[in-house]
Amino acid sequence: MTPPERLEAPLRWRDRTEPGDPDAVTRIVHATDFFNDEEEAVARELAEERLARGAESGYEFLFAERGERAVAYSCYGRIAGTRESWDLYWIAVEPAEQGRGLGRELLAQTEARVRAAGGGRLYVETSGRPSYASTRDFYVRMDYALEATLADFYSPGDPKCIYVKLLR
Amino acid sequence: MTPPERLEAPLRWRDRTEPGDPDAVTRIVHATDFFNDEEEAVARELAEERLARGAESGYEFLFAERGERAVAYSCYGRIAGTRESWDLYWIAVEPAEQGRGLGRELLAQTEARVRAAGGGRLYVETSGRPSYASTRDFYVRMDYALEATLADFYSPGDPKCIYVKLLR
Repeated sequence: MTPPERLEAPLRWRDRTEPGDPDAVTRIVHATDFFNDEEEAVARELAEERLARGAESGYEFLFAERGERAVAYSCYGRIAGTRESWDLYWIAVEPAEQGRGLGRELLAQTEARVRAAGGGRLYVETSGRPSYASTRDFYVRMDYALEATLADFYSPGDPKCIYVKLLR
Repeated sequence: MTPPERLEAPLRWRDRTEPGDPDAVTRIVHATDFFNDEEEAVARELAEERLARGAESGYEFLFAERGERAVAYSCYGRIAGTRESWDLYWIAVEPAEQGRGLGRELLAQTEARVRAAGGGRLYVETSGRPSYASTRDFYVRMDYALEATLADFYSPGDPKCIYVKLLR
């Protein structure tokens, strides 16, 4: 007899935020080992803002769950003062779930929700440092175009790259 | 006898926010006739955030007052996740006070505060539409350099221009 396969719970998508989400966000973002303490704090703060103020916060969340566990999420929202521009503020996938297309699926699901809400352009910003090359490649593979680079934005030698995808 | 000259109260600068500031901000921004309703609401919200959460809000305010009346203000703050990048979120001068250098003085005072707080770069964003030409010229005269333009950002045909000034 072969050992029983590990039965993996199917993936579910959840848009509605829950009281435990700030903790889930902190856990996922921390586990990626990709963000510093201040970035982690900001990621958590956005989830708290959403819980406290609802849609008025301007932050939308999409969680991918396996069983009861959130394993990936995105945070996005319409940019105030624009007709149809939206920002992808955050996207993160737990390490154990990486490498099997969940990031692509999460981003595609996010784009579908932005499109359905009337969004025409989705912006995403990331660092131009060598260590972010795989992040930038990911966006390019997802049809984001590099529209601008702000030199020394994050710190001297660390530029901000602004990508945009037209959703229509 | 000549009629008595109108004695004008001297200008004072105030960094500390006060309970009446959301109203003052709304009044000044509305009076400029330059911002739409949503922008007016955002301007007010930043002042409310600052009053509610203090420095933790990330929003700093500088008011120019004549007598008891705020006649111009700027709103600025450090950009989280960056070492020394700051954003100028808002700057507005009452129409009756325009045309005599108060905008320049307000921006210079703001830059001095950013510099004193350790800021090395100050970003400002504005529209690329023809009706914003005087705003863009103002920033260029104040030594801001156009670093990027995001096409159709505000709406189709209405790009966002990102300017930056190095403060050191």
